[in-house]
Amino acid sequence: MSQIGIGIVGGGYMGKAHAVAMAAVGPVFNTRLRPRLEMVAATSAESAERHRAALGFASATADWRALVDDPRVEAVVIASPQDTHRAIAEAALALGKPVFCEKPLAETVDDARAMVRDAEAAGTVNMIGFNYIRTPASQFARRLLAEGAIGRVTWFRGEHAEDFLADPAAAFSWRCEGAANGNLGDLAPHPINAALALMGPIAGVMAEIERVHDTRPGGRVTNDDHAQIMCRFESGVMGHIYSSRIATGRKMGYAYEIHGTEGAIRFDQEDQNALWLYRAEGPEAERGFRKILIGPAHPDYQPFCLGPGHGTGYQDQIIIEAKDFLTAIDTGEALWPTFRDGLAVSEVIEAVRASAASGRWEAVTQA
Amino acid sequence: MSQIGIGIVGGGYMGKAHAVAMAAVGPVFNTRLRPRLEMVAATSAESAERHRAALGFASATADWRALVDDPRVEAVVIASPQDTHRAIAEAALALGKPVFCEKPLAETVDDARAMVRDAEAAGTVNMIGFNYIRTPASQFARRLLAEGAIGRVTWFRGEHAEDFLADPAAAFSWRCEGAANGNLGDLAPHPINAALALMGPIAGVMAEIERVHDTRPGGRVTNDDHAQIMCRFESGVMGHIYSSRIATGRKMGYAYEIHGTEGAIRFDQEDQNALWLYRAEGPEAERGFRKILIGPAHPDYQPFCLGPGHGTGYQDQIIIEAKDFLTAIDTGEALWPTFRDGLAVSEVIEAVRASAASGRWEAVTQA
Amino acid sequence: MSQIGIGIVGGGYMGKAHAVAMAAVGPVFNTRLRPRLEMVAATSAESAERHRAALGFASATADWRALVDDPRVEAVVIASPQDTHRAIAEAALALGKPVFCEKPLAETVDDARAMVRDAEAAGTVNMIGFNYIRTPASQFARRLLAEGAIGRVTWFRGEHAEDFLADPAAAFSWRCEGAANGNLGDLAPHPINAALALMGPIAGVMAEIERVHDTRPGGRVTNDDHAQIMCRFESGVMGHIYSSRIATGRKMGYAYEIHGTEGAIRFDQEDQNALWLYRAEGPEAERGFRKILIGPAHPDYQPFCLGPGHGTGYQDQIIIEAKDFLTAIDTGEALWPTFRDGLAVSEVIEAVRASAASGRWEAVTQA
Amino acid sequence: MSQIGIGIVGGGYMGKAHAVAMAAVGPVFNTRLRPRLEMVAATSAESAERHRAALGFASATADWRALVDDPRVEAVVIASPQDTHRAIAEAALALGKPVFCEKPLAETVDDARAMVRDAEAAGTVNMIGFNYIRTPASQFARRLLAEGAIGRVTWFRGEHAEDFLADPAAAFSWRCEGAANGNLGDLAPHPINAALALMGPIAGVMAEIERVHDTRPGGRVTNDDHAQIMCRFESGVMGHIYSSRIATGRKMGYAYEIHGTEGAIRFDQEDQNALWLYRAEGPEAERGFRKILIGPAHPDYQPFCLGPGHGTGYQDQIIIEAKDFLTAIDTGEALWPTFRDGLAVSEVIEAVRASAASGRWEAVTQA
Repeated sequence: MSQIGIGIVGGGYMGKAHAVAMAAVGPVFNTRLRPRLEMVAATSAESAERHRAALGFASATADWRALVDDPRVEAVVIASPQDTHRAIAEAALALGKPVFCEKPLAETVDDARAMVRDAEAAGTVNMIGFNYIRTPASQFARRLLAEGAIGRVTWFRGEHAEDFLADPAAAFSWRCEGAANGNLGDLAPHPINAALALMGPIAGVMAEIERVHDTRPGGRVTNDDHAQIMCRFESGVMGHIYSSRIATGRKMGYAYEIHGTEGAIRFDQEDQNALWLYRAEGPEAERGFRKILIGPAHPDYQPFCLGPGHGTGYQDQIIIEAKDFLTAIDTGEALWPTFRDGLAVSEVIEAVRASAASGRWEAVTQA
Repeated sequence: MSQIGIGIVGGGYMGKAHAVAMAAVGPVFNTRLRPRLEMVAATSAESAERHRAALGFASATADWRALVDDPRVEAVVIASPQDTHRAIAEAALALGKPVFCEKPLAETVDDARAMVRDAEAAGTVNMIGFNYIRTPASQFARRLLAEGAIGRVTWFRGEHAEDFLADPAAAFSWRCEGAANGNLGDLAPHPINAALALMGPIAGVMAEIERVHDTRPGGRVTNDDHAQIMCRFESGVMGHIYSSRIATGRKMGYAYEIHGTEGAIRFDQEDQNALWLYRAEGPEAERGFRKILIGPAHPDYQPFCLGPGHGTGYQDQIIIEAKDFLTAIDTGEALWPTFRDGLAVSEVIEAVRASAASGRWEAVTQA
Repeated sequence: MSQIGIGIVGGGYMGKAHAVAMAAVGPVFNTRLRPRLEMVAATSAESAERHRAALGFASATADWRALVDDPRVEAVVIASPQDTHRAIAEAALALGKPVFCEKPLAETVDDARAMVRDAEAAGTVNMIGFNYIRTPASQFARRLLAEGAIGRVTWFRGEHAEDFLADPAAAFSWRCEGAANGNLGDLAPHPINAALALMGPIAGVMAEIERVHDTRPGGRVTNDDHAQIMCRFESGVMGHIYSSRIATGRKMGYAYEIHGTEGAIRFDQEDQNALWLYRAEGPEAERGFRKILIGPAHPDYQPFCLGPGHGTGYQDQIIIEAKDFLTAIDTGEALWPTFRDGLAVSEVIEAVRASAASGRWEAVTQA
Repeated sequence: MSQIGIGIVGGGYMGKAHAVAMAAVGPVFNTRLRPRLEMVAATSAESAERHRAALGFASATADWRALVDDPRVEAVVIASPQDTHRAIAEAALALGKPVFCEKPLAETVDDARAMVRDAEAAGTVNMIGFNYIRTPASQFARRLLAEGAIGRVTWFRGEHAEDFLADPAAAFSWRCEGAANGNLGDLAPHPINAALALMGPIAGVMAEIERVHDTRPGGRVTNDDHAQIMCRFESGVMGHIYSSRIATGRKMGYAYEIHGTEGAIRFDQEDQNALWLYRAEGPEAERGFRKILIGPAHPDYQPFCLGPGHGTGYQDQIIIEAKDFLTAIDTGEALWPTFRDGLAVSEVIEAVRASAASGRWEAVTQA
């Protein structure tokens, strides 16, 4: 067993999640490579030091370049705002250091393309942080689909609906300006990633993007509140994706339902430890959606608990990501999802914006 | 209390449902006007006589004109195929007889327009049979929305998903040919009606219509299996409607969810005795969707049972329709939904077909 | 097809339900015997006439003996208070008239035994009105158990929980005095009947009976609010039954769960159109409780609707009872549940009272 | 921030869970005291070394006394079989070292009493590991009850049902012999703890204990499969507790429902991130059980995630325990639940065994 020094850029919401994950992943998964919390970078020396102390890093910095350059930092986790992703990733990749980057990959599709090009040129481990698709339940859904468990798929509906800005009286904040912070930039990548991961590439989209609340106490909102996307997968299947930050009552509405000729799958992250599976088999009188409680028989569950139905949670998804990142570094083999998967999401979003502008179907352009 | 002679054209699935409803509605609702099952018409003398005997009509006929003309038939229920609706309705209206017509109103939007024109010219009671919106739960949802219970509405999603043709090996039948018998002609009217009833008029649509299974044992399928519709309501709200006859696992998936600035509503007809309501009020820690079990506090429930949660079913929806039809006749005042409401659905469908053909947004043209 | 004159004693809650059922059952089930609403009896001439007019009976009386004796009344439905059941039933049976008696069979176990003796001596059709076990879902549960679908049963838990007296400020009424009107007399018969119908005879019980609210505005309460029963079935299986009229939030909490060596069943009448079935078969990863939506593949559903998941309700249960009553009369063959099944419930309740008094296990004495 | 050396006796299921928790708790909760994984003890040198390597301890031993005595071990977590608890705890307490002991506290109630006496005499931090009551949802339920949110409580029903021995063909194992390993010794402590934590002390019980499967492949079973307990709380409330290891289909059926005069609470650990709350307030038409998704507004959730509904899991419960243990050590103030709470559970179990033997109500004797 050997160690690896981890540097995390960003000590807020996601930075903390990754720090915890790095602290826990070793004993949870009995990984060969054991992470050492080496350095955290934040926007000021004060906050960096505060994160260092809270999260247990050895050192702190207000300069992400210092983190990337430090030889004790052998792998970099990027958990800072979208517009910083590219520069950090390129600096780390240039030094041959493995990079795990939070979603979305970059602020623009051009940046995302550049990052993929650089990462693939460097031949270095690169991963993108789509955590929700990493629950044992959603991994199991992917496996079922890959095995043809529901036959030929005929329909996909996905959504990610939350309500953190549903109240028109909620104050203006950084979330209310900048395309990257809008619903389409922030939430939509998750259900689009789910669609791609479960169904394969999207050929074209027809979309609507809408800002419902133009002003909020403290400012004028300039990005979108929700968006809907009719899509056509390359497989020929028709689908629909919805994402919203104003979906009153929905707290973690990352959900999908998939119909096939021989069955169906339904999932809602608000009950992330259950997957609903219908199989069109056996006597008609006994058919129904089964509520399968996730357990050791499903992917990446057993290391957390030997008992089925005992449940994993949000933080565990990040631990699973950490395990895959370490495994990729250890074996030198890329593990899904890589930067390229992040780019695929950005390309769909680019087409979504084009379609909302043109009022027509737009093809998804793939690099 | 006085009686009224009822004639029903069609003795199959819906003809039977209406016959039962007419038999039960008097004691259930203590109606002033009491229906008398006078005559049933079917496609042959044999089947008409069989329906007469089974359903308890006084007489039977293979000629719907004989039914309409018979002076003992004082009101007509049309439960025959769509392409017969217009002629029957016009004949009855010409005699000043109230007409209840099953959905959809007519095979074409032109026929539907003509029926509305005739009905309104005649000044006779005319109703259209959208039963699912008549459950106590959906009536309650309409009331909540009308009262502004969830604030300003920001999103509507509706669907009607069943799986009776989900199996590609299901045999070819009359359901597989003719636009009227396809998903869009047969199932889509229900969620479109729900959208209109809950949200008001639809201004425009962007739609996809698809046939997934081109052939079935016994024939070539010529109509559609499922369709999705992005819509914009006249109120400005964005929405989505989906209908499918190949939605494996879904048996009565007439469902909707509606987000508002102060709450949300969720409903699924597969559990028709519950409405889910979220109110953005009270302490955050105690907020959640409430599963409201329908009872005497909700519309049209108490006549069926004094106890809440004891439940109404499919047949009860038809009894509620019968009550409204009798009440409209008795009072001479039109009761929702009338032919005009049926026409509104047909007009949306016309726009859906246009959009699917053009690949663009199409406005809904209202007569 | 022939007719039969029906007399109903009682025109209130259950009297109305049976009148509606008799009006609807012919067309719903295409019964050979068609009921004719002949006479209704109530406690006063005024209320009887009011029920007659509302429910559509030919005549009315304030004297149940007149109803029983009238030759136009060929079968009697008893929907009056418990303490009247025995006298009415005996009078009708003495005339050889079939009797359908609402639950519970009688006020005391002695009365119930006398009624069974008389009915069996008369050899006349006699039935008891346990409607909840007649839903298609619960009939299906019985069939599954009979077929051994969940293997050898190891545990039964049943309950009937409502909240109509949960509020301590609810006014004193007739429900608050007299053992027959208490929870044990009024509600407990349902889950006990369910236990017997699903599991077979109960050998012994250990019970607690409790009055929680001693006084209410307007009076001193003298009967019980809730009761719990540990039971041992003759099959050797252990079980538990709970009934309550103060179960805040529960509106129709007639529910059971049954574990077996090869599966399990769960049901809650608040969603009466679904039965949950678990089968311990197939890959572990795909096991789960299936939510089976009731449909034409289940008992007594298809006459109400051809589509699965479209749902039946409370009133439909009574229509099913009417169908069975008419069928038993028509064929001359007794149909479950008979007076004897009603007596079996009374005998369990007798043992429950004995156990609550003694603080010990008490055997159920069977006649 | 200072460190504390942790020794864990046992490296299996629970030992691992506690090791992970100690690794993660610092960054999750930003604890003042930071644990250092010092030593793990197991039954052999080989397994101890394997656990050390996997879980990241500094050292390993096959002798728990060496662990307890080592000065680098400043606090002890006991995650070994029940019959070892007392000796280990007493050794650690004698050295003044804080002890966290897995449930149940001890194999016998006498041992449990001795441990409480020793712990209280030592004045050292002592805690007992009831993890399920530590979910944010169940902590919130406790708070709601303490605040009187559902008024005066009138009924409690709790259960813990799993199915790991439901299959009669499951092989004989250590779980099948020894009272401590039976259902009553192993599972029942959880729902009894829940009952005590939510409702207060239990005055008396009337219970049944049953072994359903007498033999299994490989041996004769000598302990129990399931048990039911009617109980009377000291508050006067009636209740029922069920626990089972043969509850086919139930994977983590730690569940309770509590009725009060002004509301009700329902919870099922199989969906541990939701609590169902009914409040008897507001218009009747809008009442219903609310499905409250747990979030930052609830106890001990926010450190895991800022978004509501994102979910915590099994491992997070253990992290919460670790946080409380460290906090108690840091502040020197006892935190619930202590050894005394563990003893309270043992005392109820003692009464349960007595009642099952006597067939009568038995009082719970409190030390």
